[in-house]
Amino acid sequence: MSAGATSSGIINRRDLTFQLYELLNVEGLCERQRFSEHNREVFDAILDTAERIAREHFEPHAALLDENEPHFDGKEVHILPEVERALAVYNEAGFAAGCFDEADGGMQLPYTIGQACAAMFHAANVSTSGYVLLTIGASNLLAAFGSEDQKRRFMDPMLEGRFFGTMCLSEPHAGSSLGDLRTKAEPIGDNLYKITGDKMWISGGEHQMGDNIVHLVLAKLPDAPPGVKGISLFIVPKRRVDASGAVGDLNGVRLMGLNHKMGYRGTVNTVLSFGEEGDCVGELVGKPHHGLKYMFHMMNEARIGVGLGAVMLGYSGFIHSLAYAKERPQGRHPAQKDPNAPQVMIIEHADVKRMLLAQKAYVEGGLALTLYCATLVDDEQTSPDPEKKAQLGLLLDILTPIAKAWPSDWCLEANKLAIQVLGGYGYTRDYPVERLYRDNRLNPIHEGTNGIQAMDLLGRKVTMKQGAALRLLLGQVQETIAEASGVSELEEYVGGLQKALGRATEATMALTGAAMGGKIRLFLANASVYLDMMGHIVIAWMWLRQAIVAHNALQSGPSAQDKAFYTGKLHACRYFYRWELPKVGPWAKLLSSLDDTCMNMPEDCF
Amino acid sequence: MSAGATSSGIINRRDLTFQLYELLNVEGLCERQRFSEHNREVFDAILDTAERIAREHFEPHAALLDENEPHFDGKEVHILPEVERALAVYNEAGFAAGCFDEADGGMQLPYTIGQACAAMFHAANVSTSGYVLLTIGASNLLAAFGSEDQKRRFMDPMLEGRFFGTMCLSEPHAGSSLGDLRTKAEPIGDNLYKITGDKMWISGGEHQMGDNIVHLVLAKLPDAPPGVKGISLFIVPKRRVDASGAVGDLNGVRLMGLNHKMGYRGTVNTVLSFGEEGDCVGELVGKPHHGLKYMFHMMNEARIGVGLGAVMLGYSGFIHSLAYAKERPQGRHPAQKDPNAPQVMIIEHADVKRMLLAQKAYVEGGLALTLYCATLVDDEQTSPDPEKKAQLGLLLDILTPIAKAWPSDWCLEANKLAIQVLGGYGYTRDYPVERLYRDNRLNPIHEGTNGIQAMDLLGRKVTMKQGAALRLLLGQVQETIAEASGVSELEEYVGGLQKALGRATEATMALTGAAMGGKIRLFLANASVYLDMMGHIVIAWMWLRQAIVAHNALQSGPSAQDKAFYTGKLHACRYFYRWELPKVGPWAKLLSSLDDTCMNMPEDCF
Repeated sequence: MSAGATSSGIINRRDLTFQLYELLNVEGLCERQRFSEHNREVFDAILDTAERIAREHFEPHAALLDENEPHFDGKEVHILPEVERALAVYNEAGFAAGCFDEADGGMQLPYTIGQACAAMFHAANVSTSGYVLLTIGASNLLAAFGSEDQKRRFMDPMLEGRFFGTMCLSEPHAGSSLGDLRTKAEPIGDNLYKITGDKMWISGGEHQMGDNIVHLVLAKLPDAPPGVKGISLFIVPKRRVDASGAVGDLNGVRLMGLNHKMGYRGTVNTVLSFGEEGDCVGELVGKPHHGLKYMFHMMNEARIGVGLGAVMLGYSGFIHSLAYAKERPQGRHPAQKDPNAPQVMIIEHADVKRMLLAQKAYVEGGLALTLYCATLVDDEQTSPDPEKKAQLGLLLDILTPIAKAWPSDWCLEANKLAIQVLGGYGYTRDYPVERLYRDNRLNPIHEGTNGIQAMDLLGRKVTMKQGAALRLLLGQVQETIAEASGVSELEEYVGGLQKALGRATEATMALTGAAMGGKIRLFLANASVYLDMMGHIVIAWMWLRQAIVAHNALQSGPSAQDKAFYTGKLHACRYFYRWELPKVGPWAKLLSSLDDTCMNMPEDCF
Repeated sequence: MSAGATSSGIINRRDLTFQLYELLNVEGLCERQRFSEHNREVFDAILDTAERIAREHFEPHAALLDENEPHFDGKEVHILPEVERALAVYNEAGFAAGCFDEADGGMQLPYTIGQACAAMFHAANVSTSGYVLLTIGASNLLAAFGSEDQKRRFMDPMLEGRFFGTMCLSEPHAGSSLGDLRTKAEPIGDNLYKITGDKMWISGGEHQMGDNIVHLVLAKLPDAPPGVKGISLFIVPKRRVDASGAVGDLNGVRLMGLNHKMGYRGTVNTVLSFGEEGDCVGELVGKPHHGLKYMFHMMNEARIGVGLGAVMLGYSGFIHSLAYAKERPQGRHPAQKDPNAPQVMIIEHADVKRMLLAQKAYVEGGLALTLYCATLVDDEQTSPDPEKKAQLGLLLDILTPIAKAWPSDWCLEANKLAIQVLGGYGYTRDYPVERLYRDNRLNPIHEGTNGIQAMDLLGRKVTMKQGAALRLLLGQVQETIAEASGVSELEEYVGGLQKALGRATEATMALTGAAMGGKIRLFLANASVYLDMMGHIVIAWMWLRQAIVAHNALQSGPSAQDKAFYTGKLHACRYFYRWELPKVGPWAKLLSSLDDTCMNMPEDCF
């Protein structure tokens, strides 16, 4: 019963190599000044190290941590010691600082390589990884907007693994509606502020690991304008840090309770109260009222990170269920009528192949999208050409809500299928697939619910700059179509994608027409369907990109193993175009009809 | 944080009344001899009692039981005492025997009323209900196939709540492939047999409640033919029962371990070993080698029961998320630009309405189907006309895999949406929606995986008797279409359903054509899509049936409250026809193309 618990399921490294070097040309980034000291060998060595640490130090305690979640004894939060030990190995290897400047003690790695490493830690143990990813996120904000003094006193210790970081945005009464937050910051001189208020859903908000926890808190100054324009960002450490960086007394951040979740159980999730008992002092980051702008500056990366995390939970489930399907005998082929004939492995059943192929199409498609977005981040940040930079930024802006939401919807679906492949065993806690499913259910919710992503995509990204971002995206897709055109093996996909694009364009015109006619509520009422539709088109594009590379590679006489790999890519592409992309038809039709069924459902009629 | 934990979410009784009396005419069953002593008042009183017991004795410990699952201390299995107390109240009220013959101490209730009661217990607490539903299932088998002596010694105590029942089918090496089971039964005279073998996934397999546990075990006699034709059914009690019915010594049934599941945590799930230490004696039920036939005799009811259980888990999530959406303020309408304007309740957001409407369409559609199937069971069992009886049996046969699989897929989807409505709160264990989602994930797996249901539907039910069952089903749908035709408000749905039927018919012809051409593997390769397609069509039919009743009721000047209720039905129907039914198009096209993508994926290419 417990065989599954010990098997490993992180990533198919052959696929990662394909994605990074054959599909994305990450090596090409080394031509940029910032990455000029790196090359593929360096990247591979780092990926090898990440995989080894993930496998040896993160994965083994994932199930144990899930079953033994952090608890609060009224005085302290207790977390399995395996977590701190794994983080020590991680920090020892310098992963936290991987993408940071060499001047800050980092390795100046491309974001794409950092994400590929994060992907493996995520797949191995999402809860333990949570602590480092949050700390990196907080460090990123300080790197971009903190003063030199703040960077030395707070960011450096985070990158060394001595301090942990958190993000404190939501409040109990206002989860997604940041404009309504009530936490206050009153100036007490010297860029210091007295912070008072409650924060909700704070991951990593309290524990005994490391020397300190650096909370990055959104709060309002006394003279703040109303709504989102009146939000400022503060550093609020658990323990005060003096001018020399020495850690001192507690700073009035009180743990009000832990949230107990369905998944992500190992990442302690807290309700915090600031300044309720004893003074709680924070330092302003950057300029007053610029807090949300700073957060949004990091938003694309944070959301792509969530998307990639969702991909990897799905990916891990795919690997586990694939291994199971190859080893589990059960049943016979439909035409086999002899009850004494030996049972076949379940991977031979067409319906099991369907469930594996769907998982493959979702997770490898999702990985292609999220890594592609990561290269856009690198490309944008290091491009010497301002016009190109602006274009990359636009492309990233429009792809971000899709890269966050699509994997969190469809790689959760992959996790559901992984359970189904294992049947009753998949439903038990002896195998990891049920845990991965529980973990992944968070991703459509946090870092902006998928409903909010949909409003962002249609209400902001599609219409901004007179549709420039959308045109840019469609142009990129057309480039791939042009590349595939004339290749007879890819003809079906070229036609399928063209048709889907045509339908999506019609739907977009109908919707923007409604918006221009002032029907703003109707325009946005079915935004989530628009996100589904655009998501499937973008993933179909990603599959066509992969199919082109695989098709070309097959022409050049690959090894038997590579031949199977590339054939699998073509097969998964076919699956996506025949089984998934046709969903765009009904979605586009519904959108084009400006259906008001949901918007106009009277509330007393439910 | 814990407000959600105490709220109740079982069923909308107005909807249940609508389903039973306005849509299904359950009162009409009282014209049958078997039910002639009942009337609507009796039914309502029983439903009221069931709801009250479910609310007062089942629902309050549902979350506690989930967090404190049964455990084995090496000697005994311990289960929260609340479970046994709730079951005592349930048995006191006579619910176990509700549908059984008066001669057997039952109330001779229609199966439909029994299912409506079971629905409420299921929604209130699926784990505690599990014990009684299994016991009723075992009692049903003995009522149908046991000797009078077996009924008195085993069934009667089960119906009184003194004994518990289980079904022991699966074995560790052969979950769904019953023909491969290895448990042996060697005759030792007097209709007694020595049982040896291991059984897996046995719910309620061991505990200290009641006086005894009656295991109904599938095993093979020494002279058994191979495969499914060589399976016999045995009564194997935990403690031996003598001729007088007195409970004696342990009977060599050993608990090997507990399975720890993602959901359904409160229903102890076991691995049992029979006859490994000490003799384990069983009694043959009915004739040798007829075991699977007996099981299949109960299969329709068991599978409809699973479907209804899936519906109710979704229904409960719908009620909880609806209540939350009406009380939770957050955000403003898209056109509202004033950040100082008060926040609106989230039910006012179009995307939240979408998630509620989808849930309503899934769960009320699923309830309509499973209760309709329940009336077919009653109608078939009590119809005086043999030809009509045969037709009802056929209709039930073809609807059963759909009634099992569709709700377990789509009402799980409803549970996913309920979590999303609650956002971060929905992901915590302070609210019931995450538990309902975990519970419901079992339903696509047990009582025949949905993949097996799909093979059953396409490979057996569609083709049996030269397609008679399918023709009968389509005829019923056409009758509803005829009834709705000419009503302008329903015209859109008549057209939509006709179109979907046409596409499904084309797909069916393409598939059966492949089968007749000998391409059996290709015929069955995409059976799961066929099930999806037929499921959506059948639920669309159920929604048209509901819309007709609602439309007619609105003509007769209902109360304001009823007007809102019927309007809601029409709105949900519209949702299903505009948002869900169009999915049939791509499914039918895929099926008609006899796509071999999944079937032909080479195993080394994943």
